[in-house]
Amino acid sequence: MNILIILSHPNPESFNHALAQKACQAVIQSGGTPWFHDLHAEGFDPILPTEELNRIDILPPLIQQHTQELSAADGIILIHPNWWSAPPAMMAGWRDRCIRAGLAYRFETDSHGNGYPVGMLHARFLLLINTLNTPINVETDCLGNPIYSHWQKIVFGLCGIKDVDQKLIGPVITSSQ
Amino acid sequence: MNILIILSHPNPESFNHALAQKACQAVIQSGGTPWFHDLHAEGFDPILPTEELNRIDILPPLIQQHTQELSAADGIILIHPNWWSAPPAMMAGWRDRCIRAGLAYRFETDSHGNGYPVGMLHARFLLLINTLNTPINVETDCLGNPIYSHWQKIVFGLCGIKDVDQKLIGPVITSSQ
Repeated sequence: MNILIILSHPNPESFNHALAQKACQAVIQSGGTPWFHDLHAEGFDPILPTEELNRIDILPPLIQQHTQELSAADGIILIHPNWWSAPPAMMAGWRDRCIRAGLAYRFETDSHGNGYPVGMLHARFLLLINTLNTPINVETDCLGNPIYSHWQKIVFGLCGIKDVDQKLIGPVITSSQ
Repeated sequence: MNILIILSHPNPESFNHALAQKACQAVIQSGGTPWFHDLHAEGFDPILPTEELNRIDILPPLIQQHTQELSAADGIILIHPNWWSAPPAMMAGWRDRCIRAGLAYRFETDSHGNGYPVGMLHARFLLLINTLNTPINVETDCLGNPIYSHWQKIVFGLCGIKDVDQKLIGPVITSSQ
């Protein structure tokens, strides 16, 4: 089992980094191989440039590596804080640049000429690990858990991943060591 | 009337740029002053760095300018495409870096010791101008218009802006010149 683990937090001393380290260890202990990316540490550029807007044949090497690992992974783990009930810009940029039509999903046309999306990822699960400072019931009951909806329904649902779990951990700001 | 206009699209020839130009013209024709930022053109860095995570006293000059204009603006216009029913990473980074506790909102404590947010922006309206390739009814009825919810409910609701309007323009990909 090859598990793609994507981490987005600017501070290498963060709780998110500790969670990512534990996730990698858990994958190894289960006999799997973690494909781990600390986006800040690897200097990932989150800005989708004009020339890549409608092209997937000119992706730079690091972006190509991400798209290839995304296609080949048996499972995906995304680790990031909840900033404005959304992924931080770095993680949003990973999404913008790496989850691409023709690689992670494609559109086909039915007999009536209507287009419909077909997921192209074969990962069996997506696990979201998200820290937050909002009380968890406020995030889920009052705000509707927008991060879960975003990744589960909008993004990875289109790519064919049905099994999505989320660990919401918080509020961090008032927690003990 | 000073109107802050924030544009996020990587291509200077984009339809979003044309819309931003029209928005600036409309503000001027109404006797107002547009405070216009093309985030890509000005080289905005969307990554909130560790040292700014819990501090607003060390913001670099460009970020300070944005936060000051946000505080002083009579109205705000955000122009960006719909990527994954969300703002592109560049616009997400503008949000992460410029809409800050202590400047755009603060927390106060009621007599029972419960914290509650207080909006600090005095802009009278927020206008969202968003292009999309999804059919508009799919975006609004099936997906629940996540971009509107994000800016209206999650972000600017907290900052005290109640009057939020949105122009959804699309599908662009199948449109004529």
